[in-house]
Order: sequence, then structure tokens, then C-alpha cells
Amino acid sequence: MDDTFSGPFLSCSSAHFVASTCKLHAGADAPKSSPDAAPQRLPFSTVTSEDLDFFRKLLPGRAITDQDVVESSNVDWLKSVRGSSEVLLRPQTTDEVSQILRYCNGRNLAVNPQGGNTGLVGGSVPVYDEIILSTSLMNNIMNFDNISGILTCQAGCVLENLSLYLEDRDYIMPLDLGAKGSCQIGGNVATNAGGLRLLRYGSLHGTVLGLEVVLADGRVLDCLATLRKDNTGYDLKQLFIGSEGTLGVITAVSILCPRKPKSVNVVFLGCETFEQLLKTFQLCRGMLGEILSAYEFLDSECMKLLNTHLKLPNPISECPFYIVIETSGSDSSHDSQKLHNFLEEAMTATLVTDGTVATEDSKIKALWSMRERITEALTHDGFVYKYDISLPVERIYQLVTDMREHLRGRAKRVVGYGHVGDGNLHLNITSPAKDPALLAAIEPFVYEWTTAWASRRETISTTANPARPWP
Amino acid sequence: MDDTFSGPFLSCSSAHFVASTCKLHAGADAPKSSPDAAPQRLPFSTVTSEDLDFFRKLLPGRAITDQDVVESSNVDWLKSVRGSSEVLLRPQTTDEVSQILRYCNGRNLAVNPQGGNTGLVGGSVPVYDEIILSTSLMNNIMNFDNISGILTCQAGCVLENLSLYLEDRDYIMPLDLGAKGSCQIGGNVATNAGGLRLLRYGSLHGTVLGLEVVLADGRVLDCLATLRKDNTGYDLKQLFIGSEGTLGVITAVSILCPRKPKSVNVVFLGCETFEQLLKTFQLCRGMLGEILSAYEFLDSECMKLLNTHLKLPNPISECPFYIVIETSGSDSSHDSQKLHNFLEEAMTATLVTDGTVATEDSKIKALWSMRERITEALTHDGFVYKYDISLPVERIYQLVTDMREHLRGRAKRVVGYGHVGDGNLHLNITSPAKDPALLAAIEPFVYEWTTAWASRRETISTTANPARPWP
Repeated sequence: MDDTFSGPFLSCSSAHFVASTCKLHAGADAPKSSPDAAPQRLPFSTVTSEDLDFFRKLLPGRAITDQDVVESSNVDWLKSVRGSSEVLLRPQTTDEVSQILRYCNGRNLAVNPQGGNTGLVGGSVPVYDEIILSTSLMNNIMNFDNISGILTCQAGCVLENLSLYLEDRDYIMPLDLGAKGSCQIGGNVATNAGGLRLLRYGSLHGTVLGLEVVLADGRVLDCLATLRKDNTGYDLKQLFIGSEGTLGVITAVSILCPRKPKSVNVVFLGCETFEQLLKTFQLCRGMLGEILSAYEFLDSECMKLLNTHLKLPNPISECPFYIVIETSGSDSSHDSQKLHNFLEEAMTATLVTDGTVATEDSKIKALWSMRERITEALTHDGFVYKYDISLPVERIYQLVTDMREHLRGRAKRVVGYGHVGDGNLHLNITSPAKDPALLAAIEPFVYEWTTAWASRRETISTTANPARPWP
Repeated sequence: MDDTFSGPFLSCSSAHFVASTCKLHAGADAPKSSPDAAPQRLPFSTVTSEDLDFFRKLLPGRAITDQDVVESSNVDWLKSVRGSSEVLLRPQTTDEVSQILRYCNGRNLAVNPQGGNTGLVGGSVPVYDEIILSTSLMNNIMNFDNISGILTCQAGCVLENLSLYLEDRDYIMPLDLGAKGSCQIGGNVATNAGGLRLLRYGSLHGTVLGLEVVLADGRVLDCLATLRKDNTGYDLKQLFIGSEGTLGVITAVSILCPRKPKSVNVVFLGCETFEQLLKTFQLCRGMLGEILSAYEFLDSECMKLLNTHLKLPNPISECPFYIVIETSGSDSSHDSQKLHNFLEEAMTATLVTDGTVATEDSKIKALWSMRERITEALTHDGFVYKYDISLPVERIYQLVTDMREHLRGRAKRVVGYGHVGDGNLHLNITSPAKDPALLAAIEPFVYEWTTAWASRRETISTTANPARPWP
């Protein structure tokens, strides 16, 4: 749910809510029309043949009404929700986007901007008959400055293509995620995607230096700065980062890119308890320091899903928790030594019980797939209730435990995985089929649990890290 | 100009403009009243004895009217501008700030929030009789989570105090600047201070996780999240970062703090040309990689100022340009080796002509003072015209050269120093005394030069880093 535009002027989806998000209920029995909890269709106009004439003239060959083609943009990646749009527009330039939005605004037509359509919360597809504005053909790299590492490109550039372009120039993108092969940078920014490198390179609020955005009435907001530091006036572009397309359509992005690391290592470890997993994180941050680039986790239920549905074998012995650690650095011998010291210490302190290290590309990819392919494995397990929650890192797994306890066997599986470094849990609950009774048991429990934590505020004191009881 | 509130509801100062900023004209003959280009006083009310009664009741002993005390808040650090406020308020809590602003809003009284009053562009002091709202007594640390490294504190905490608090807990602040002994975190955020660690830890837009802000009418905006990742709704707090107090008074901050490095080294190098200095930067980024934490520069004119006015001796032989490089890492032997390899390569390629390395605290401080004390040295050189400009890094020194050429000896000195990593130049022009003819020669030239660069936009192409002629 990291990587695509949501509908800006009609649908109102949400990703990464503290009080979670649950638009998505995926599975084999995906709904044929709009989802259960769809908002009411507002009194927008419907598309007429005059409208189509305008679009066809503006975008020759790129105003699509062939329903076989439009269909793939009406349905999300998980096939969980489906809109009924009849028009797919594929602009190539900011000016075309501006003209589309100005026209639609004047005609009171709803528009659903769409990036790579890889989102997992149904935010990227129409709810009703919104016009789909796809950024897929806006895929030009506009500039790359190899002194500053600042890349400027159109919003429709696919993340992996940008990564490949940069790797040739000795740089990398500051974000990486499982959907990289399809997701687009504009959608990444619109959803404030975190992904696997947030721990090292920080959020897009820090790395995005500039944006160009077209507002609903067609006006172009030019905040496309390419300066590392720009304190001219209010930093308006920040409002669009994570705004899910509700304030405008992002048409271009400038972003600060880190140097390509000369050495990358990946470690896969097993832990007996979540407490040990957190202690290992602390040890790791101290001993790997500046070369730590990812610290991800999955529980044993995730491992069973990977084994069962994707036939991915466990690379180590069975454990309640697994950790994926990545290091990236500029000196492979230094990195190896730091890693060796860390692993020795973690083993000696019996924080971890088993582990394996990868330095070669193919093994690195194999280990990463244990984390990256969980979403895919889940889709084979039945109907999935998905929640994506930020919490203080020391509490993130308690929700999984509490949910299991709360559901007491009513679900097929309750699994937890996610980004330890970011305090971001992916809670997934599967069921053989769609199950309203199960849903009623999950919600509002999950929201109440999360809100209770989110609404807590430390009182003024100089006591560092006081014990935090369940609120 | 990195570190203090500017007046929010009346005065309109500015810092770090792309098209620069020049409110400041400092020197021995500092104006006794409002500056030359002061905005007109708007029709605000003036403070009455009833108003004072209200403030005294709300803030017993903390509503100051003793003019000797108020004076220090009326004048900025450089003694370049002076307001004529007669009331200094020192709230301790957010509620008190809220009550002050609600009252002043109702009474139509102008308010000038003030942090450490260390700013260099006159933005921290009143222009006329605005009430000064000082955050100095709002200096409580509210919470520190030593697992996530997230610090939450009141806005008036002095940066150095926060640093000391964190160092005991094995963390550091993500920003550092010369004024750290006086500047306050609220002012740092309000001015989007960059400072000496931006290269490594990024801007406050990335590291500030939450803010509490009191709006002009007294409403409290609670965006004080303490989550590494928080995608709930629009990221409103971003608007206040760098808004210079014009949108509200920041009362509390939560900020993500990096682990304290186990090893720090500082190198002071000399270069023959600015081009070599940039080539050294590229080499350094590649070879020092993840341990590079600062890359600052000064020119030979700065060195003369340090020698002449502060009696600081040049630690190396005379060169046209000097570089201060800092590394911070988790393994001292690895860091030393990386540094050694880099220096060997830089010397072999004759990019640098001389240099010295410091690993001990006292020598590190001494080398840093060559960069940090330039501002102080300038104040002894006469009247100073100061500009703080962001540009593409490869062009930052050309403005100094062009300005020298343009002024042709009319100034006493034209000096350049700043943050190479951030593309941020400090251009300073000194003169024996205030000199309107000199000012007329500097401006609008400096603005036109900068604007010409800032308004350039690369055309759509996949050519990386095309040559950039003077616009």
C-alpha cells in the first residue's frame, strides 16, 4: 500500500493510518463492483460523447475507451476492489494533465489519478465511473546532476527504471519496495511510501526536494526546486507528500539520491522472542551503525505461508521470529568485519539462535524474497484482512499477540511482519472465505487498540523512556 | 541566521532565501531604532496598563517591563537592528502561550515570538513595539525513547543542552550549529536551520517527527507525533518548519536523533582552486561514503579575518581555499583507514596541497573553530553586508568571484564560506562603515544573479549533468 495514487476528487482511501486502514479485503471472491463500505457517489456529471471528443482531440490515441484495456485500470493489484470507469486517459505532459483537469473541473467530472496501480488498500482504482488519469506515459527523466545526486523526473517513471538509470551513474534511489517493478515515483510520493530503506535514508519528506503538481482546476503549482536546501517561503510541496492525490496530481518530482554502496550484505536470523528481536535491533544499531540499511522482521506464521504457498524453504532452522538485516557500505572488508563482530556478539549473548549471511547477489535476492513475497503468499491463503500500523517499536508485535488472543481461533491465521526500524507493522488476518462475523470481531478492536496507543501522550518529565503499560 | 524565531504577526524577516536575504547590515554603527527598510507599522493597538495587569496575573514575575531586561530582547546578536518593545513575556507552558495569543489577538496587539535571539538577519527582534514572547523558560525535556531515539521537548530547550542530555544516553542531535550554546530547538525548527550535519542527517523536514504549535488566535495545533512513520492525513506540521513564526508559535518538538558516533575525525585541507575543492568533494563522498558527516569550506579572505581579528593561526600552509571534513562512524580503525586512503588519493591526484588531521577533542574543536568563528571574525572587520544563498553546488563560489569583479575594490572585503554538501554559500561583504553607495552596487546585483540561476529549469532530457553556462 506504498505506491500508487488514490482517487483525488471522489474516492477517499487511506494508507498507513495510525488508527490503521482496512479498505482492503482481498481474496478469490473479490467483489465485482464497488467495495462494501464505498462512499456514496456524489453528484458528478457522467461522461458524454462531447467529453470523449475533447479527450480524443487532446490526447490522440491516448484516450482509451476499449473496456478490455480500461478493465486493468479499474481493478487493483489484489483484485479486491473494482471500479466502473469507462475512460482511461494517458497524458504525456504536465500541460495535458492541466488541460484534462481544467476541463473536468469545468464539466464537474470526477477524476481518479493512477500511478502503477500497485497499492494494497484499493486507493488506486475508481469507486464508480471516475475518469482514470494514468501517469504511465509520463516517464521521462528530466535531469540528473551527478555532483549533487539530484534526480528530476516525470511522475510516471517506474521506481525500478529509475534505480537502474541511477545505478549506471553510481547512485541509488533513496527508497525501495517490493512493488518496484511497477510502482511509479509519483505514486510513491503521493502515498509517502516508506519501504525497505527508510531506516537508512529517511522519509520522502526529507529526500523529495521538489514537486510539480496540477491542482483540480488545472493550475500548475511549480515547487520543482532542485536545491539541497531551499528556505524560500512555506514548503508547500510537503502537503502533497502523503496526500494520496486528494490535493492535486503530482506530475514531476526532484529527489536526492544517495551514492550506490560498494558493498551489500544480507543476514537472515532467527530469534526465540520478540523481546530478543528488539534487543538484537539495539545491538545491531550500535555495532553496525552507519552501514545498517534495513532491519525487517517476520513471524513463524509468515514462514509457514512462504513454505506452503510459494514453496520457499526456510534458510535456517525453525524459530518464532525471523530478522532480515541489510548492510550497505563503501568498504567490503570493513563491512564484513562489522557484521562478523555483530553476529558473534548476538550469538554469544544468545539473542539469536540461528542465521545465514549472503554477500552474492543471487543469495541476497533469495533472502530478501522471504520478506518481500509475504504479501504474495498471503493472497494464496484465502480472504485477507490487511492492516498497516505505526506504533512505538517496542509495542508493534503486541497487537498481533493480542489479536490472536482476541480472535481465539476464529481466523485461519493471524500474521505479523514489517519494518522494525520504522515501527511499522503489517498485520494480516486470513480466513477461508469472506467472513462478516470475523470482520466484526477484528473491527473496531484493531482501531481501539491502536487509537489507545496513538492517543497516549507522555507527561512533561525528564525521565527517559519510562515503562509504558497497556493504556 | 539559522536559529531563532522571527516576528510572526508583524515583522517579516527572511532567512536562507534563494534570492538571498539582506535585512542585516551589521557593524559598530548599529541603528538605534528600526532598520532602514522596515515595513510600515500596521494599525495594531498599543499596550495599556490593563494589558499589563492581564499579563502580570497570567505570568507572575514573568511579564517583564524593566527596560534594561527588555533591551537585550529588543536587539539582535549582531546588534544590527533594534526594536522598541516595552514588554517581554516568559511563558512556561503551552497553555500560557495560548492564553497570551488569544488575548493579544482579541486586543489586536502585535506579538514577536523569540527563541535564542541568535539569528543573523534581524528576524528575531521587534521592528516597533511588538510584545516579545520568549520561549526561554519552556525548556523541559518531555520524553526520550532510547530504543527509537525519539526526543520530545519544549521549544525553548537550548540546542547544546539537548546535545549534552542525549550524549549521556548515547545519542546526538541531528543538527549542530555555531550558535548551539544559545539557540533553541523551536527557533531551529521555525527557521529550518541546516547547520553542519545536514549533509549526513538531512533536513529538519525529515528529522522532525512532530510539532505542537499555538496559532495566532490561541488555538493549539497538536501534531506532536512521536512515530518514525506517520501517514495519518496531511502532514500539516511541515508548514511550520521554516515558516519563521509567521503561522504560529512552536511550543514543542519531537525529533529523531541519531546514535552517537564512536569515532570522530576532522581534517583541514588546502586547495588551489574551487574546482579542485569540488573534485575533492566527489572523491570524498565516494571514499568516505557513509562516515562523511560534514564538508565545509572557507576562502583565503576568511582565513585572513580569522588571523587578523581572532589571532587564530592557519593550521596549514596558505591556500586559496580550505576544506573542513568531518567523519563520524562506529569503528575508529575502519574510519582511520578510510580517511587515510582518501587523503592518499587526494594528495596523489594533487587535488589538495596541504592538510592536517585531528582525532582528539581539543584539536577537533580547534579545527572546527576555523569554520565556526568566521561570523564572529567578520563582526570585527567593519560594517557587514550578509547574504545566505542556496545554489547548485558547482556554482556556489562563482557568485563570490563575480561579486568581487562587480564591486572592483569598492568593498573592504568580499568573502565566501559555507556548506558545500548543501550547496549553501555565506557571502559576506565588509566595508569600513555603512555605505549606501556600496549597498546600491551590491543590490539588486546579488538578487538578479541568484534569481537568474534559481529560475533556470532543465529541459526534458536524459542527459545527465549537462554543462551549465551562466544564464
